[in-house]
Amino acid sequence: MAPSVNPSLYLDPQHVTLVVAAALAEDVGPGDVTTLATIPGGATCTAQLRTREPGVVAGLPVAVEAFRQLDASLEIMQHRQDGQPMEAGAHLLSVSGPARAVLTAERVALNFVQRLSGIATITARYVAAVQGTKAVIVDTRKTTPGLRTLEKYAVRVGGGRNHRFGLFDGVLIKDNHIAASDGIGGAVLAARRAVPHTLRIEVETDSLDQVAEAVEAGADAILLDNMPPEVMRRAVEMIGGRALTEASGGITLASVRAAAETGVDLISVGALTHSAPSLDIGLDFSLQ
Amino acid sequence: MAPSVNPSLYLDPQHVTLVVAAALAEDVGPGDVTTLATIPGGATCTAQLRTREPGVVAGLPVAVEAFRQLDASLEIMQHRQDGQPMEAGAHLLSVSGPARAVLTAERVALNFVQRLSGIATITARYVAAVQGTKAVIVDTRKTTPGLRTLEKYAVRVGGGRNHRFGLFDGVLIKDNHIAASDGIGGAVLAARRAVPHTLRIEVETDSLDQVAEAVEAGADAILLDNMPPEVMRRAVEMIGGRALTEASGGITLASVRAAAETGVDLISVGALTHSAPSLDIGLDFSLQ
Amino acid sequence: MAPSVNPSLYLDPQHVTLVVAAALAEDVGPGDVTTLATIPGGATCTAQLRTREPGVVAGLPVAVEAFRQLDASLEIMQHRQDGQPMEAGAHLLSVSGPARAVLTAERVALNFVQRLSGIATITARYVAAVQGTKAVIVDTRKTTPGLRTLEKYAVRVGGGRNHRFGLFDGVLIKDNHIAASDGIGGAVLAARRAVPHTLRIEVETDSLDQVAEAVEAGADAILLDNMPPEVMRRAVEMIGGRALTEASGGITLASVRAAAETGVDLISVGALTHSAPSLDIGLDFSLQ
Amino acid sequence: MAPSVNPSLYLDPQHVTLVVAAALAEDVGPGDVTTLATIPGGATCTAQLRTREPGVVAGLPVAVEAFRQLDASLEIMQHRQDGQPMEAGAHLLSVSGPARAVLTAERVALNFVQRLSGIATITARYVAAVQGTKAVIVDTRKTTPGLRTLEKYAVRVGGGRNHRFGLFDGVLIKDNHIAASDGIGGAVLAARRAVPHTLRIEVETDSLDQVAEAVEAGADAILLDNMPPEVMRRAVEMIGGRALTEASGGITLASVRAAAETGVDLISVGALTHSAPSLDIGLDFSLQ
Amino acid sequence: MAPSVNPSLYLDPQHVTLVVAAALAEDVGPGDVTTLATIPGGATCTAQLRTREPGVVAGLPVAVEAFRQLDASLEIMQHRQDGQPMEAGAHLLSVSGPARAVLTAERVALNFVQRLSGIATITARYVAAVQGTKAVIVDTRKTTPGLRTLEKYAVRVGGGRNHRFGLFDGVLIKDNHIAASDGIGGAVLAARRAVPHTLRIEVETDSLDQVAEAVEAGADAILLDNMPPEVMRRAVEMIGGRALTEASGGITLASVRAAAETGVDLISVGALTHSAPSLDIGLDFSLQ
Amino acid sequence: MAPSVNPSLYLDPQHVTLVVAAALAEDVGPGDVTTLATIPGGATCTAQLRTREPGVVAGLPVAVEAFRQLDASLEIMQHRQDGQPMEAGAHLLSVSGPARAVLTAERVALNFVQRLSGIATITARYVAAVQGTKAVIVDTRKTTPGLRTLEKYAVRVGGGRNHRFGLFDGVLIKDNHIAASDGIGGAVLAARRAVPHTLRIEVETDSLDQVAEAVEAGADAILLDNMPPEVMRRAVEMIGGRALTEASGGITLASVRAAAETGVDLISVGALTHSAPSLDIGLDFSLQ
Repeated sequence: MAPSVNPSLYLDPQHVTLVVAAALAEDVGPGDVTTLATIPGGATCTAQLRTREPGVVAGLPVAVEAFRQLDASLEIMQHRQDGQPMEAGAHLLSVSGPARAVLTAERVALNFVQRLSGIATITARYVAAVQGTKAVIVDTRKTTPGLRTLEKYAVRVGGGRNHRFGLFDGVLIKDNHIAASDGIGGAVLAARRAVPHTLRIEVETDSLDQVAEAVEAGADAILLDNMPPEVMRRAVEMIGGRALTEASGGITLASVRAAAETGVDLISVGALTHSAPSLDIGLDFSLQ
Repeated sequence: MAPSVNPSLYLDPQHVTLVVAAALAEDVGPGDVTTLATIPGGATCTAQLRTREPGVVAGLPVAVEAFRQLDASLEIMQHRQDGQPMEAGAHLLSVSGPARAVLTAERVALNFVQRLSGIATITARYVAAVQGTKAVIVDTRKTTPGLRTLEKYAVRVGGGRNHRFGLFDGVLIKDNHIAASDGIGGAVLAARRAVPHTLRIEVETDSLDQVAEAVEAGADAILLDNMPPEVMRRAVEMIGGRALTEASGGITLASVRAAAETGVDLISVGALTHSAPSLDIGLDFSLQ
Repeated sequence: MAPSVNPSLYLDPQHVTLVVAAALAEDVGPGDVTTLATIPGGATCTAQLRTREPGVVAGLPVAVEAFRQLDASLEIMQHRQDGQPMEAGAHLLSVSGPARAVLTAERVALNFVQRLSGIATITARYVAAVQGTKAVIVDTRKTTPGLRTLEKYAVRVGGGRNHRFGLFDGVLIKDNHIAASDGIGGAVLAARRAVPHTLRIEVETDSLDQVAEAVEAGADAILLDNMPPEVMRRAVEMIGGRALTEASGGITLASVRAAAETGVDLISVGALTHSAPSLDIGLDFSLQ
Repeated sequence: MAPSVNPSLYLDPQHVTLVVAAALAEDVGPGDVTTLATIPGGATCTAQLRTREPGVVAGLPVAVEAFRQLDASLEIMQHRQDGQPMEAGAHLLSVSGPARAVLTAERVALNFVQRLSGIATITARYVAAVQGTKAVIVDTRKTTPGLRTLEKYAVRVGGGRNHRFGLFDGVLIKDNHIAASDGIGGAVLAARRAVPHTLRIEVETDSLDQVAEAVEAGADAILLDNMPPEVMRRAVEMIGGRALTEASGGITLASVRAAAETGVDLISVGALTHSAPSLDIGLDFSLQ
Repeated sequence: MAPSVNPSLYLDPQHVTLVVAAALAEDVGPGDVTTLATIPGGATCTAQLRTREPGVVAGLPVAVEAFRQLDASLEIMQHRQDGQPMEAGAHLLSVSGPARAVLTAERVALNFVQRLSGIATITARYVAAVQGTKAVIVDTRKTTPGLRTLEKYAVRVGGGRNHRFGLFDGVLIKDNHIAASDGIGGAVLAARRAVPHTLRIEVETDSLDQVAEAVEAGADAILLDNMPPEVMRRAVEMIGGRALTEASGGITLASVRAAAETGVDLISVGALTHSAPSLDIGLDFSLQ
Repeated sequence: MAPSVNPSLYLDPQHVTLVVAAALAEDVGPGDVTTLATIPGGATCTAQLRTREPGVVAGLPVAVEAFRQLDASLEIMQHRQDGQPMEAGAHLLSVSGPARAVLTAERVALNFVQRLSGIATITARYVAAVQGTKAVIVDTRKTTPGLRTLEKYAVRVGGGRNHRFGLFDGVLIKDNHIAASDGIGGAVLAARRAVPHTLRIEVETDSLDQVAEAVEAGADAILLDNMPPEVMRRAVEMIGGRALTEASGGITLASVRAAAETGVDLISVGALTHSAPSLDIGLDFSLQ
């Protein structure tokens, strides 16, 4: 039986706590002087987080944490789950309680959820574009410094999967590594000897000759970098299932379908995280 | 005499050290297993950071810091300064020394400089669009959590100026603060009493009636939110120099000129930081 | 309606948590060996915090936090609020529960509340001395390293207000800045261009000529440094409401009234924080 | 041979680094906006730290560290050593180099050195007052939270010695510990069993009966709390060298000599650290 | 009345929290990918921690904390207390609740409790070996970096006592200190002058001549280093109760009895912490 | 060409810096009172680190860092490299310079190098025991909390290789994961879907039936847990090269050869890190 709750949607609560605390420290600093001056300590409010354009929402638990850190007595109800495609105007979560806390946390909560939802939304478009092929959309290490874990979570929320989380949980031998290692064969051999056997060895190639070398060297996965679809298709055929195949290099929404139809196993897309525009989400607030 | 080095381009080295260290920890973790396995410890290289599309580059000192943290023995020459508009192919900096360090730091260095250059480049476009008016382009608090200081620096590099850095160094009274304070007059009065006199009091308005109230209350600055240009122009006339004026709310490259021509002092643009695409910049590497 | 709870008395709970934790670490280190050796783990007690001389008490929530961090099961009742003037013998708070925790936290709790109450008490004396004038007593940056936020809070508790919290939330142009900037006019202009518009520009002056220059340059506030009362009075007249006025420089309880009667808006007093003697407060403890 | 450099004047450089960094972060925050705006990046200066009243200076290495952290290229010459009694106008240290760094660090450097010199100065007065007796002046745990190590250093600079640094490096059994332990005998026995043999056992007493009990129990040191001089003298006689003796409790400059003449070994004075006024020290600055 | 709960078994909960958090961060990193992939988020389990060989168990509260940090909703019952000698198969604690949390925390919990129980078990053997003598078994500073507090706790659990916790809570003058101080007399005198009177002065000796010198110098304790039992016995006689005596230097289970029978007060054994093998303890897990 | 410097011997300098700083803080705390009291600040010394029994030394750079952190002016020469088998009396490194720093750092330096050398030495014995077979000796996650990176480095120094560094860089499906996943097939499938493709999927088995299931499920590696050699041999034959094979479970120096001769690829041994005795190494010190 496959897990009933999708394990790939896991978001580490302790990590969220730390990242949110840092963001609040950055924004609030010694204090939200406007709110402290104008909102009585005893004032209470209700507020609703709502989409203002359609998209896939990600990061609601992060928004919840931002409100909670400002004031643990806030009552927060999350009406929708991360990953649900939504129309403009969808009611995502309600907060009620001390008005100061809500106003002070608002911008940090929005900054997270707008950015993560932007990533989930664009990921969902890439995933839709390859529907019916076997290709899986994966992310890259082109993430925002400090937010990699959250951004990779947003990719999963949008229906993508994750490539390695860093330089430590995967081997990807690129041209520069090859140049220092007496060819692909030498590099694969060196990696086999040095890294835990729990890691696969992937090799980046940019020609069919290199693909042949990588197969020969016993690579576990082969990255096909910046190849036109017809070359990529021949590469997939040459590999013939002896290694996983990954398409990479400047792939856009316009070109992703053609890449998928070459039969590759994975397509990695840097733009999922380095250039996704924010999704417009707002907070409707009223004093009680 | 105005300062000969533009003070607004200041980038705090200690902050850079910490942010870069966190980014390297996130990416490298227990070690760059590929590079350690395939690149001999004694191998050396030269590498050049180059633009791959035109734009305004920002963040070169951050990239320098990333390489330096990996190996203090690297020789690094920075050929261009942040803020110079550049063509594709411009040679930004050279690194030479231990090959392992360069390959392990590469992605973190690029992630910073691509993102910050994206922000500087789009800022420069907004600044160019209002040339000849008195309007100044400023940023907002819609920044990436954890990177606000760097992103606001990139806005300055692009020719913009900074709005407040957080909730602590400026008072901005919005509709919700007003609602809790018996009107604009009450809110301004409460703020005058509570905050250091070193901070100005700015009031957000969305109608000419509110503008009149804010002037009456003695606001130091008045934000004109989401007003059509003709309404904004009348607001500027009503205020008549008794307060600074700031246009805000969904302003795009297409609409910014019209806003500027209303005579406002400042135009704040969230998209400078929340939706700027990365600038394409790459590292050319060769073993020695 | 002005806020019903005075927003200026805000004390950030998260900051308190961190400062108290650091103080406990400093004092307790690897353990309170005396208490662990002599007090059984199960022993319980009641204890009362009481003033031993008259004064204005500040920092009771900090004392509460110190006890709470040692043992969350302690029952703590706070009988008085920060800011209430009190006679000797006033009962401030009661603690009951595990005896070890109370004895181990005692000194840290007292160190905070004695120091902060000392500041609030002396501030209240300055505030009383200027009663009936429009002058507001404010603090300076001459605070104890690491305790600025708490000490500025104590000033507010004593009836004073706060000058800027640091070098980041206010511009104060002093003689050395002027010397490097082609005069007051150049310095004010440079500051206008470089800092967020949310900050006022204040200029320090020590002669009527400089006051005239500062008015001319459009300074938002003018600090009158070490001026005799009659000079200060003429400066206030010259400024004529075009800028805020702040008296500063070696002002004592003996001289503060004369300064206030010159008509200045603000009087800043370093001695509030750099030389306030502790208020005597003690803990009466009994085993149950 | 006794050490040629007095080991008791040791000041841990790593601790200084951390405390200074925290103080600079607190004061400078996102940046010294005034200095960045008005002082050109390339401007240089010379500055001299000088006493403005007589006293014993302490903390010069802390001031040096504050300047050094702002800019490692500053040239700093320390002309006097901590512990030297000085007249007003003494030239303590010179700094030359980038003007921005000097102005930004100035307040933090002064805050430390003024406070620590205030403590050293008052300590020296107590030490002078007991000259010719065998009594040693020691401090207490009534220090500023976060600054204990520096403040205890300042006490040594002023000629005093240190009582325990915290609850971990000394046993001091007070009335409340005794109440929970079946008397002084039981408490001393419990402590002997529980703590490392490297720690002495000291007992606080407030009557001659308790002194007798403490001697009987084999205490290593006996604190005589709030005893009039004649009682204290009889206690010292009763103890007869079988334990160290420490006078404590509200001792002032007026009363310390009488306490010393009772023959006690140590006199602990809380006011050394909890109520010492700052020593006036200033920075003379000139652009080059 | 001696304390009913042995104070020497104190384990600081805040220290445990930090050490466990660091250990979990080290092991879990970005996530337990196996468990997240294969165990549904809603799955629950019961698990029992059991000894697999006889020994003295120490560290159960640390294991509890590891489970609790992973998921605060786990129900944990601790059936046995630290310090009880146990047979193989003893049921130490039960955990029930979310299965993911139990599996992810398992290894960290076991790593702590196995190591600490190994130390307690070997300590108990040394303590048993000297039964009937007055000698007390104490530890040394030869502990695992980062785990000293826990390892010294485990020694107490096993029936030993603690030597100083670090270089700060005890004076131990060794040969190198003596060489720099004009002999034992000079070194003891220098220490008396420089350290808080709350610390005893202990001197390490390796000959009867040195023992005589140490007695003469008034040392509070004398360490007898690497002396054969007959020499040690003569040293104890020479000292005649004027100082505490500590045997040290390569003492094993085979030799400890002979050392104890010389009449020394303390015997310090580095092997308690630097070479104790783990005790075998396991977790029996079943899904519900 | 294979790397000329063995990449597997990499030791991250930044990690070493942090771990050493924490260890020094733990041991030195507020100061090494003995050394400060008895060694003049200006005294200098030479010292040599030497083996006192034969073994494989590991951790010399960690010892160097400990001395360097105490005083950057120490001159340190490392005469031998980690990994060289040595006789008793081998001269490992020399330190000369300020005597205080050497004496204060000594214990921390020794604690690291003794422990790590103990691990390297025992690892080398296991590696020697399987010489001539294809089996590789690997470590486990049974490491000291906080020291995993260093201990795994010591295993490499001793000639072993590393299993996964934590729960994040390898998938190891154990019986409890299988129980929650509808068998081995379900668990492998769930893992394939959820984790980055850069990670291999390993399955733990304890019977030939399970081995068959794991092969069928397409596991990349199969752990043979606690199997007698003859069963293990049959398992290796059944797998026939379709997956890596790892022997595990209570393997000792006495049994490791038999396991290796079954033809397994890897043998994991917990005792390398959880029960290795320290190697005896000492510091010979003399004042200059």
